[in-house]
Amino acid sequence: MKRFTLSLLAVAFLAGFVAFTAFASRHADQEGTPIFVTKIPPGYREWRLVSVAHEEGELNDIRAILGNDVAIKAYRERKLPFPEGTIIARIAWRHVPSEENNRAFGREQSFVPGEQPPWYLQFMVKDSRTYAATGGWGYSQFDKDSKPGPESDMKTCFPCHQAAKDRDFVFTRYAP
Amino acid sequence: MKRFTLSLLAVAFLAGFVAFTAFASRHADQEGTPIFVTKIPPGYREWRLVSVAHEEGELNDIRAILGNDVAIKAYRERKLPFPEGTIIARIAWRHVPSEENNRAFGREQSFVPGEQPPWYLQFMVKDSRTYAATGGWGYSQFDKDSKPGPESDMKTCFPCHQAAKDRDFVFTRYAP
Repeated sequence: MKRFTLSLLAVAFLAGFVAFTAFASRHADQEGTPIFVTKIPPGYREWRLVSVAHEEGELNDIRAILGNDVAIKAYRERKLPFPEGTIIARIAWRHVPSEENNRAFGREQSFVPGEQPPWYLQFMVKDSRTYAATGGWGYSQFDKDSKPGPESDMKTCFPCHQAAKDRDFVFTRYAP
Repeated sequence: MKRFTLSLLAVAFLAGFVAFTAFASRHADQEGTPIFVTKIPPGYREWRLVSVAHEEGELNDIRAILGNDVAIKAYRERKLPFPEGTIIARIAWRHVPSEENNRAFGREQSFVPGEQPPWYLQFMVKDSRTYAATGGWGYSQFDKDSKPGPESDMKTCFPCHQAAKDRDFVFTRYAP
């Protein structure tokens, strides 16, 4: 009976230890999880179009949202969550009037891409293991010299993208 | 001598006839040249991005300009005139505010693609022989049911595109 009790205790202890280790490990994983992407995904300018958008105010940009093959397929099949390997790119340019177009149209109405803004390039990369702490998405932005933005900026991405949680944290919808 | 004169006359007549035929034929070609494209080029939604734009006023749209492989290569190599086979597509959507994005940004600033406008799709197709009368470009527009616009509308394309004559009649520049 004593031996049985000891065995039971040993099993209980072992189970507790395993559970604690798993918890600690998961916790450490989340603490150590990168939240952003530090390299520009190669070939992004060859990707297909997801949509376009225009931001007024401080951003004052016109933008294109492109997707790699995995992204485009998922968008078209309305597949949620997006599969591993999905990458969505956002390219922005200053929203500037086109005098040339306005002359042709005969009125002030036309806006085209101007200079690249400070953070002209952004990405969302789906990798559920690597970016477990931020909904499975790694975020990034790059300046015109391809230099990544500071990690502190990236900490603001996920909280904001929570607003699109029901679409796997992706704001942009596919434009047919 | 008489025979020589007759021969000379025959040659002159023949030359005149050939010249006249060539003129008449060229003239007929230009008269009969189609100025617009009646079928949607297949696979255009897979093409790469040339640029984006926003038109205010009556158009009130946000648009993407895509190019087939020939177009993209020519744009990137700054090749003018555009080679035979170039096709440039313009897809437009209504420029509408995104309430969802505005909530996330905390201000009214975000515009995204809305419904397709009546002529949501336009193309320029480079084929110097077929579209000789309009600078080597065939023009077209299609409604959401893929029905081409009337040829009368297309007659306004080329005169307006004359404003971009030094860039082979193409307004849109490549956005890096």
